[in-house]
Amino acid sequence: MKLTILFGGASFEHEISIVSAITVKGKLAGFDLDFIFCDQDHLFYLIDSSSMKAVTFSKGLHKKMPQLSLTNGGFVQKTLFSSVLHTGTVLNLIHGADGEDGTIAALLDFFSIRYIGPRVDASVFSYDKRYTKWLCSARGVKSVAHEELSLSEHKNINIQYPVIVKPACLGSSIGVSIVKEDSELSYALDSAFEYDKNIIVEPFLNGVKEYNLAGFMADGKMYFSIVEEPHKEEFLDFEKKYMDFSRSEQVLKADVDEELELKLRINFEKIYRNLFEGSLIRCDFFVVDGEVLLNEINPIPGSMANYLFADFKESIALLANSLPHTKRVKVNYEYIHSISKAKGK
Amino acid sequence: MKLTILFGGASFEHEISIVSAITVKGKLAGFDLDFIFCDQDHLFYLIDSSSMKAVTFSKGLHKKMPQLSLTNGGFVQKTLFSSVLHTGTVLNLIHGADGEDGTIAALLDFFSIRYIGPRVDASVFSYDKRYTKWLCSARGVKSVAHEELSLSEHKNINIQYPVIVKPACLGSSIGVSIVKEDSELSYALDSAFEYDKNIIVEPFLNGVKEYNLAGFMADGKMYFSIVEEPHKEEFLDFEKKYMDFSRSEQVLKADVDEELELKLRINFEKIYRNLFEGSLIRCDFFVVDGEVLLNEINPIPGSMANYLFADFKESIALLANSLPHTKRVKVNYEYIHSISKAKGK
Repeated sequence: MKLTILFGGASFEHEISIVSAITVKGKLAGFDLDFIFCDQDHLFYLIDSSSMKAVTFSKGLHKKMPQLSLTNGGFVQKTLFSSVLHTGTVLNLIHGADGEDGTIAALLDFFSIRYIGPRVDASVFSYDKRYTKWLCSARGVKSVAHEELSLSEHKNINIQYPVIVKPACLGSSIGVSIVKEDSELSYALDSAFEYDKNIIVEPFLNGVKEYNLAGFMADGKMYFSIVEEPHKEEFLDFEKKYMDFSRSEQVLKADVDEELELKLRINFEKIYRNLFEGSLIRCDFFVVDGEVLLNEINPIPGSMANYLFADFKESIALLANSLPHTKRVKVNYEYIHSISKAKGK
Repeated sequence: MKLTILFGGASFEHEISIVSAITVKGKLAGFDLDFIFCDQDHLFYLIDSSSMKAVTFSKGLHKKMPQLSLTNGGFVQKTLFSSVLHTGTVLNLIHGADGEDGTIAALLDFFSIRYIGPRVDASVFSYDKRYTKWLCSARGVKSVAHEELSLSEHKNINIQYPVIVKPACLGSSIGVSIVKEDSELSYALDSAFEYDKNIIVEPFLNGVKEYNLAGFMADGKMYFSIVEEPHKEEFLDFEKKYMDFSRSEQVLKADVDEELELKLRINFEKIYRNLFEGSLIRCDFFVVDGEVLLNEINPIPGSMANYLFADFKESIALLANSLPHTKRVKVNYEYIHSISKAKGK
């Protein structure tokens, strides 16, 4: 199986993406892997497998490696006298901006490069937490109540304390605060607005059960991971999440009964089907009084949630062989021809 | 004022985009205009102003003109010994796929090129009529009732005849049918599914009033066009719409009272604000018993709806000088450095 791991990006999760790529490399041993790094200036580099270490990037050593550019059908490596086209299927592992906001998806679509990862529309609905709420509501999936605030418009919050304040478009807990009383609110809003001009405020649900479920579709059939109960803390801060992205040991299945597991799968599928095809996503759920609420969608989960799959390599292979393909429209200039004819030209 | 008109694209509206570009060229006389054509194979060409005629493209003459490619900061024209970078602000005039689905927006964002046109998220919400409904519902804008059908899932329609069947993602009336009775339904569904794997079905509202309103935001202030009452026919078929895209004469203001005009503007602004910044859009409304319903959003209206603006050139200049700019994240490898240090490396 040939696969090109695309990672990096101009994002707050740039470093996390590097850690993810290194982890996935370890989990896909035996695959024929290429590595393409997108640096913070949006330049692409072909990274030698043996250089896949965090320090390669933090020290800027990647700049000495071959630069690539996008062209129809792949990434091209040009030298003075020749050019090599890298046509492999891409695994989009750029977390956060660029990778999860639809930019990389659009680039790969435009240049007809096959890829594992969310398409443009799926990206928009998972990247911005406001739009995830709209998706839930349209598809009959419950989610936590919320209010939307924007920098350009001031309004009061009607949700009772404690609340959780989140930038609309960032993952990995960046800019997130729990606010227990009025005096803490303004600082929390400022912190969130530092990262995003839109934020959401939700009631902070204490003592809620959390379950993560990953999955994907191949040949019209859903494949689910085991259900995981993530570490119990108020929430993971950035440094803990950072370490979390390098997870590679398979976790134990959470202690959930069949009925709850089925409910989680049904909600996952409502979100996934007819939107997330081509991607392996992780949905993070809350369970309150037996009711399942979607918390967030990770369309490119850290290290591809490898630790949730009994056979991660087989899962990636299945998905890679079942990617949506976009039919490119053919133009025949029928109307211009008929109008030119009518004009006698 | 310097501006690069980007047109063409691999879309059912490719030819319409050519007509649009030729029309806009005429309306922006006095501007310093460049023309970049995206052909159906996603190759870019720099088109000489004097060659801006429909036959240039239908005869394939553009292939003899300089080819361009995307690079950080603009479109680059490479010759054997030199390269010229075209850095001008782009007016995205690619209708339909590529231009309105978020692809071109993502490309221009990624390569840090300033442009007039919908951003990626705005594109997704206007390109797919299902998502437009979700947007309306989240923002308190009324729209026509609808049901969603997809190729992969069969279900019955509960809306009473007559209904209108539309592919979810196509403009210019392509694949649209009005169905008056059960016997006509299956053909209409087949026609729509030929263009899209998702379709929407709405009640066909007879004798409804239609009003179009265009507008944009500059320096935080909304600018509106006059309200137009479009030609009264069952609906415009593709050929009529095609001719419609070459409109350049200013139309007369529709006979609407101040109250209705205000209602239309309020609904327009609810849709526009905090989503469509950077673009000039046209919203097409229905009015039923004094109630305003959004029918569709044209984020890149035919010939930029020039005929609705008293001073089209001034409008474009205002907008071009008030484009959103994306802050690119700076990466400092803080976490990798601190982890490397902790490891003693």
